[in-house]
Amino acid sequence: MAKIAPSRRIRRTPFSAGVEAAGAKGYTVYNHMLLPTVFDSVVEDYHHLKKAVQIWDVSCERQIELRGPDAGRLMQMLTPRDLRGMLPGQCYYVPIVDETGGMLNDPVALKLSEDRWWISIADSDLLFWVKGLAYGYRLDVLVDEPDVSPLGVQGPLADDLMVRVFGDAVRSIKFFRFGWFDFNGVSMAVARSGYSKQGGFEIYVDGTENGMPLWHALMEAGKDLDVRAGCPNLIERIEGGLLSYGNDMTRWNTPHECGLGRFCSTQTAIGCVGRDALLRVAREGPNQQIRPISVSGDLPPCDRPWPLMAKNKKVGQVTSAAKSPDYGTNVAIGMVRMTHWDAGTELSVFTQDGTFNAEVQENFWI
Amino acid sequence: MAKIAPSRRIRRTPFSAGVEAAGAKGYTVYNHMLLPTVFDSVVEDYHHLKKAVQIWDVSCERQIELRGPDAGRLMQMLTPRDLRGMLPGQCYYVPIVDETGGMLNDPVALKLSEDRWWISIADSDLLFWVKGLAYGYRLDVLVDEPDVSPLGVQGPLADDLMVRVFGDAVRSIKFFRFGWFDFNGVSMAVARSGYSKQGGFEIYVDGTENGMPLWHALMEAGKDLDVRAGCPNLIERIEGGLLSYGNDMTRWNTPHECGLGRFCSTQTAIGCVGRDALLRVAREGPNQQIRPISVSGDLPPCDRPWPLMAKNKKVGQVTSAAKSPDYGTNVAIGMVRMTHWDAGTELSVFTQDGTFNAEVQENFWI
Repeated sequence: MAKIAPSRRIRRTPFSAGVEAAGAKGYTVYNHMLLPTVFDSVVEDYHHLKKAVQIWDVSCERQIELRGPDAGRLMQMLTPRDLRGMLPGQCYYVPIVDETGGMLNDPVALKLSEDRWWISIADSDLLFWVKGLAYGYRLDVLVDEPDVSPLGVQGPLADDLMVRVFGDAVRSIKFFRFGWFDFNGVSMAVARSGYSKQGGFEIYVDGTENGMPLWHALMEAGKDLDVRAGCPNLIERIEGGLLSYGNDMTRWNTPHECGLGRFCSTQTAIGCVGRDALLRVAREGPNQQIRPISVSGDLPPCDRPWPLMAKNKKVGQVTSAAKSPDYGTNVAIGMVRMTHWDAGTELSVFTQDGTFNAEVQENFWI
Repeated sequence: MAKIAPSRRIRRTPFSAGVEAAGAKGYTVYNHMLLPTVFDSVVEDYHHLKKAVQIWDVSCERQIELRGPDAGRLMQMLTPRDLRGMLPGQCYYVPIVDETGGMLNDPVALKLSEDRWWISIADSDLLFWVKGLAYGYRLDVLVDEPDVSPLGVQGPLADDLMVRVFGDAVRSIKFFRFGWFDFNGVSMAVARSGYSKQGGFEIYVDGTENGMPLWHALMEAGKDLDVRAGCPNLIERIEGGLLSYGNDMTRWNTPHECGLGRFCSTQTAIGCVGRDALLRVAREGPNQQIRPISVSGDLPPCDRPWPLMAKNKKVGQVTSAAKSPDYGTNVAIGMVRMTHWDAGTELSVFTQDGTFNAEVQENFWI
């Protein structure tokens, strides 16, 4: 792995001291912020995540706060998902698209109240798009990035750990719901959500100064649960089909291509940007789509799009790949043209280290 | 230095193969793209840059293209700098601000023609802001990121090298002007500009496929000039007072705080976003401003804002620092409150490794 030069521009987080003390061995940069990618090894982290509980510094999921009378209108402008039935205390996964239906981000929106929302973003400066729209439409809304940093608690023992710090009531938080919980006198949103399929929570830590005290409290409370510092795990997230914005989808893709058509209610999401383009897409269907792909062989790291070939014709690309210990194959995510997207289709994938055999799968692994 | 995990989300460039072959030892991530930060060592790179010529992969200075009847109007909306006198073939350094006058980016704009512009951006997704404004104002303009990647040729021997590849006419390009030059049958904009004070050019390489051929052509042509792969040099850019967006200024700063007030013609730049806020700032003056700071001692890397203290009171922060071989001190860039910004003011700076003595300087070093 290449080394990353330190600079203030690549922001540290409220939990960086904990992450460093825990011995993070690799990082990526996400929303101009450090995100650890490996502690022991990606494989050891993976096994531990599936059997115990980990604390994840996902501060890089920055929040965009919308506040004011037009907050709800602006939120609906941002996404083709119909938000009319959404209640305070709910989280919605919301594709955000531009006027052509191209994906700008795939965040989770939290409705705090009728006139207050958080958008917990993937890796793009969505704030600029939101501010641009709000300004252009002269909306009566305040748009800003608050000092709120999510801390993930992920793994099968997440509930057991969380009750020790936040009390029994956390058990009753339903999937993609959040409640307000007290830590050291500060009220924080705690959601049952997270970027793994192992279950768990995300704590929206309000105030940088509360970061390390909470980190220590969780580590202390979970000693006998083998709690460890962790991070989104490349293998596990591919097994589970969790897409990564910038990797598996970009501004060139529609939600339908990403398999997110079910989140697009273009008939009813009145006022959303990109509606015309997406109505057209919904009618015709996409001509390429995300598929789980298995690949055989000793793959290099997927640091660039790998062409997916049917004989000598390019029919798609692989954008995430990793060797799965549990499934005995390389698990991968690719975008495949409709001519070759049926499960069982055999393709080859061109990498920087040569060509490998690939097969389109019916389902993701988890 | 920490290691960076490979992923497609952190984009390679048309020149990555050349950068790797030349042995880049460190990178940063800039506009979701790899930017090398060191080859031999930051100090050796520095000495070489000041006496020879280097090829810089600055593809991460992505272009935003504005094209259409409203391109000029949109460009003027984006910046408080008065663009009325700007001619095709000129480059302008343009602060870009939001409605409160906060800096969103500090790019160089290239006027290709009356209805076509490139904005060569610093590290933020300015595209989202530009698209948001264009959409909100229903402007008749196309906004996109073309496949154009700047390649820097920097150092005192830059002219000598460039004439060998592009011909004698490059010598006549004036500072912050560009012309169109042919390479292998492709017309490319070549500007006299760059992120150093050593002189040189930026070639706006059109088409990924033309990247490595040009890289090789320059390396081959410059063998006897000791041409090397290089990159923006931390020491040299601080000596020269070249600010870095995300390091030395953020959305929380006005152009006036950054010493960029001379680029703000808020009285005449009719239609620019943030005009009201900046008129107020221009009238009252900023109460903090960028200053060159010298620091004594063995500093750690500046990976976070370092508080600048007058006794026990915080009066600013240092955001870039490096030990300068040529000036025998640590050169640094800081934002200092007006009560303490006069040259000669002695302060102390709090780092992760302890406290050091600092002094506000009259001028940057180069």
